[in-house]
Amino acid sequence: MLSFESDYTTGAHPAILQRLMETNLEAVSGYGEDPYCESAKEKIRVACECPEADVWFLTGGTQTNATVISTMLQSYEGVVAADTGHVNTHEAGAIEYSGHKVLTVPQHDGKIDAKELERFLEDFYQDGNHEHMVFPGMVYISHPTEYGTLYTKTELGQLAVICRRYEIPLYLDGARLGYGLMSRQSDMTLADVAELCDVFYIGGTKVGAFCGEAVVFTKRNTPRHFLSQVKQRGALLAKGRLLGIQFDALFTDGLYWEISTHAIEMAERLKTLFHEKGCEFYLESPTNQQFIILENEKMETIKKQVAFSFWEKADETHTVVRFATSWSTTEADLTQLAELL
Amino acid sequence: MLSFESDYTTGAHPAILQRLMETNLEAVSGYGEDPYCESAKEKIRVACECPEADVWFLTGGTQTNATVISTMLQSYEGVVAADTGHVNTHEAGAIEYSGHKVLTVPQHDGKIDAKELERFLEDFYQDGNHEHMVFPGMVYISHPTEYGTLYTKTELGQLAVICRRYEIPLYLDGARLGYGLMSRQSDMTLADVAELCDVFYIGGTKVGAFCGEAVVFTKRNTPRHFLSQVKQRGALLAKGRLLGIQFDALFTDGLYWEISTHAIEMAERLKTLFHEKGCEFYLESPTNQQFIILENEKMETIKKQVAFSFWEKADETHTVVRFATSWSTTEADLTQLAELL
Amino acid sequence: MLSFESDYTTGAHPAILQRLMETNLEAVSGYGEDPYCESAKEKIRVACECPEADVWFLTGGTQTNATVISTMLQSYEGVVAADTGHVNTHEAGAIEYSGHKVLTVPQHDGKIDAKELERFLEDFYQDGNHEHMVFPGMVYISHPTEYGTLYTKTELGQLAVICRRYEIPLYLDGARLGYGLMSRQSDMTLADVAELCDVFYIGGTKVGAFCGEAVVFTKRNTPRHFLSQVKQRGALLAKGRLLGIQFDALFTDGLYWEISTHAIEMAERLKTLFHEKGCEFYLESPTNQQFIILENEKMETIKKQVAFSFWEKADETHTVVRFATSWSTTEADLTQLAELL
Amino acid sequence: MLSFESDYTTGAHPAILQRLMETNLEAVSGYGEDPYCESAKEKIRVACECPEADVWFLTGGTQTNATVISTMLQSYEGVVAADTGHVNTHEAGAIEYSGHKVLTVPQHDGKIDAKELERFLEDFYQDGNHEHMVFPGMVYISHPTEYGTLYTKTELGQLAVICRRYEIPLYLDGARLGYGLMSRQSDMTLADVAELCDVFYIGGTKVGAFCGEAVVFTKRNTPRHFLSQVKQRGALLAKGRLLGIQFDALFTDGLYWEISTHAIEMAERLKTLFHEKGCEFYLESPTNQQFIILENEKMETIKKQVAFSFWEKADETHTVVRFATSWSTTEADLTQLAELL
Repeated sequence: MLSFESDYTTGAHPAILQRLMETNLEAVSGYGEDPYCESAKEKIRVACECPEADVWFLTGGTQTNATVISTMLQSYEGVVAADTGHVNTHEAGAIEYSGHKVLTVPQHDGKIDAKELERFLEDFYQDGNHEHMVFPGMVYISHPTEYGTLYTKTELGQLAVICRRYEIPLYLDGARLGYGLMSRQSDMTLADVAELCDVFYIGGTKVGAFCGEAVVFTKRNTPRHFLSQVKQRGALLAKGRLLGIQFDALFTDGLYWEISTHAIEMAERLKTLFHEKGCEFYLESPTNQQFIILENEKMETIKKQVAFSFWEKADETHTVVRFATSWSTTEADLTQLAELL
Repeated sequence: MLSFESDYTTGAHPAILQRLMETNLEAVSGYGEDPYCESAKEKIRVACECPEADVWFLTGGTQTNATVISTMLQSYEGVVAADTGHVNTHEAGAIEYSGHKVLTVPQHDGKIDAKELERFLEDFYQDGNHEHMVFPGMVYISHPTEYGTLYTKTELGQLAVICRRYEIPLYLDGARLGYGLMSRQSDMTLADVAELCDVFYIGGTKVGAFCGEAVVFTKRNTPRHFLSQVKQRGALLAKGRLLGIQFDALFTDGLYWEISTHAIEMAERLKTLFHEKGCEFYLESPTNQQFIILENEKMETIKKQVAFSFWEKADETHTVVRFATSWSTTEADLTQLAELL
Repeated sequence: MLSFESDYTTGAHPAILQRLMETNLEAVSGYGEDPYCESAKEKIRVACECPEADVWFLTGGTQTNATVISTMLQSYEGVVAADTGHVNTHEAGAIEYSGHKVLTVPQHDGKIDAKELERFLEDFYQDGNHEHMVFPGMVYISHPTEYGTLYTKTELGQLAVICRRYEIPLYLDGARLGYGLMSRQSDMTLADVAELCDVFYIGGTKVGAFCGEAVVFTKRNTPRHFLSQVKQRGALLAKGRLLGIQFDALFTDGLYWEISTHAIEMAERLKTLFHEKGCEFYLESPTNQQFIILENEKMETIKKQVAFSFWEKADETHTVVRFATSWSTTEADLTQLAELL
Repeated sequence: MLSFESDYTTGAHPAILQRLMETNLEAVSGYGEDPYCESAKEKIRVACECPEADVWFLTGGTQTNATVISTMLQSYEGVVAADTGHVNTHEAGAIEYSGHKVLTVPQHDGKIDAKELERFLEDFYQDGNHEHMVFPGMVYISHPTEYGTLYTKTELGQLAVICRRYEIPLYLDGARLGYGLMSRQSDMTLADVAELCDVFYIGGTKVGAFCGEAVVFTKRNTPRHFLSQVKQRGALLAKGRLLGIQFDALFTDGLYWEISTHAIEMAERLKTLFHEKGCEFYLESPTNQQFIILENEKMETIKKQVAFSFWEKADETHTVVRFATSWSTTEADLTQLAELL
């Protein structure tokens, strides 16, 4: 069946599979101590224009968020996030499971507003009772956000300035970072992200890999004995090569950007197509996820021939649904969708 | 370089890679809700001769142990294990990170003694202070153990009887279960394991997969909302297909047993070879890991041409090292090793 | 100095001290296994008109909240509270430290609205992604609330009905329960609270004791091995008599209600006094805490002669402050305050 | 009934009760910000001959151990203790509840041997797999130990040297510190303890207070935002005065030492008495706890007239029991006991 359900419905990009096959018989050490991990890390450092970056490979998004946040926070600290932030809503309480509170600020199209963040931090320290409260110890943002929206370089810079003033790390969840940076609206490079953030991750799972996220500590700020802490959280893969080889392939000959650009192109065509069909957008995102409002009856009809995600109820007779593109979306898929609509 | 370093040094068995390629473009739902996971689960239920078994796929061993143990225990309970048990020694405190104590009993070649377990449980409940102590809430064993040794069916049955009397689950860590069941010394089948244990896992990572462990709850005893708890522990893979496809391949046409038998055969030849060379065994295991005592100087020499694992110091001039075989060990490897020794 | 800073600025009610002295030399068992704890529990059961109530004594409010909530929730569950709820704001993240999320609903004068709670629970279970979210596993309210306001019996009944429908416990934080039940506006008795709530605590610290809160499980729903779990959380007092004797005194000859009534009377006079002086109320509470808006300059002046609590900034030139009464507030204190204002 | 059950069977020393009464009506700030806490801290600093000591008051022993250990350890660290250490046996898993492993070394009369500790630490860092293990991050000892035994100053010094070499804090659990330092066998002062340990606590609960333990950080090493962390662990008392006043009394005119000396004197007479009666000692401790082996029948007989603690089974016909003295043990008690035996 035709599927725009998500960007993780198909397997891995063929170039990744190819590399897995080519390297399959080579015996290497486990736990990320292999030459593929080394090579991938070096390529990422180069792509980030950040020679001192410390790169680690984890398996999935929630695991990465919980690991990064819980190892960088002190016990008395929580992480500040938009109320719609993934860590606050759809990680089954993984952050709290690690003992830390998610402190929320209002979201605006999924984003945190710098002024509001500043006020939040100011208010905290001015509160006479703040020793009885959870200290804001980190700022979490996602880019693209849960709504597919993007921070401008100026906006990210403002958040970075505030974080540095309060001496707390700025952490960017880049589960779909490629789609963000390859968006036609993006005014940022990977090097900008590396410069402005203290830690971020480059998503693999949703950008063509079977699994895997590359965490980048940019300021010589890796938590001590990070490998042990990753292991302690059940996040250390024995065959670390599986992650290393995939990221090595993704950062060879610009594959990561190629995949991302392709998905963005498909998403732009999708947008055009929905516009042409007179569909209403809940949010016209600049990235690979599009949020459409469908009349319920129509939704039920097309559901039979194309998979998409339920997002939320719009009103009694309409529903917000999400269509996502990925490395494997083809022009044929779009043509077929056009026919369906 | 020739390697007997571990059973996770090479990639995945070619049949697995083949299946990953064949299925790569098919769009399926995420988080384990795909037909491959379904198919693999059904094949495992059949192999276990346990139609009511509930099967889940996680990524790695420590993750699986921490997830199973922390979701099955009550807050006031700990898990009983041999003092050499993996959960007590080499998981960087993952069990304690989840809030639970590992309660230890003495090991005998890596195994728990039923009589000693019984006495431990009896003593606990007879202790007038036991409400101030950690309750034994589960028994953890590994099979094969950390030393490659095996429980007999009688021994496993005795542990099961004790666990049932005290109404606590018996959990078997089967990271290398295939090698255990295919050992020439084994008197157990997978169905026996399923019958005697309340929960166990069938290791994939160390038996030919890139990653993946199949947890089997055998007594309609899956913890409530297990998916949410797996997610909360950062252990839910978005592309669950990666695990489903691998286990589906492993349990098609007996691949799992074929891989295991091959490695056992290679291990037996390895044993013969070491015997012929007059090497001393620290422990002559019936499975795929062999523990040899090498004179330090000799160890340094052969280290240059073959990879193996340091296990522990034997005395001032000798060292215990581990040689492991796997699906990818070849007769050529053994011939080459023979020449080196 | 004159103090209306809080209801925990002075020691214990003299009748409590008297009992501590009288019983001092008697040797009794530790950990709550003494006749005073037994007697106090029985008196509380009688006062609650709930013979099957199971009563436990803990030391303080945050400790009690964290212990009750973390022992009644499953790992995958969080506690629903008003966004201003004490557990969400002023417990330094104690609930999250125990691994659980505080799920917030909007507050209305510190209270949860039954309709909004119902919608929150309905929406949760209708959300297709709810297995990736934190399950609402309990409802927490405070009575009086953090703003000194009260639920009516009807309102509490509505919350109870919803909780029972969703099979989650309703937990009432009664840190200042006496002041709530003795308020002139209260239409509830302790027996009503016991009937409608699944668990609640009767605050001692803020109602005349040195320390101590009495947790009441009303529905034969005490978490298993609760003593061990209390101990595990560092909340088990060796000399449990200290809590038993205090609560025994508080529930002898209606001392708890006498203390509460006295403080309410003092608070009513305080209100009158502030009205007479033309002070503006931020919130005219029916209990022992009054929230007044003071012009900043005036605030600074009277601060020199009377202690009160800073609550929050009202605007650039005004501040919300809190005046609290207690067992030890005297008419002389009020006369002195009248003169100061 | 005559009781030697423990050192926490009676209330507080009369001088403490006296101070509670005298100060009862004074209004002071909460959470330890009162003049009594200040005064008590200063007196303790003086008694420790350690002007830079940072003193905090917590409520009980397990709470103190869990708070100190969990705030001083990093996530990847565990605490090293004797296998009989209180934190390893009788705290219901409070340390593991905080996420940390207790790493055990063998006990010798309840004590850790410096050589064995050194070897344990050396072996850890020499183990090639130590990044997969729990790092030893602190050493915990109790003084007196769980068996009432004492470290000599030399022995404590040796442990201190090892801890400094490995840059991990030495933590001394002084639940019964007074009895240790006032023992006739002690060659240490409180100042010695403060100098050699990085953190320790002076037990109040078992040395004449209703509750309360004074934690002393001796090396300007208080964990950051310790108050918030104490609060987060449910260990911050609202009426902090209750602890401050008690410790102020204990450290006025040497009351703490007077209480301790009295109990030691009573314990020495107890020993003499048992010797005279020909009783066998399991362990003749130099402090206030005596471990006697009683013939079971005799035990049952005297149990009817005097309370003591069951310790452990000695053999089929004998039992180890504990007799403890305290501030409230009188000569009359001993005379009565002599008659009974």
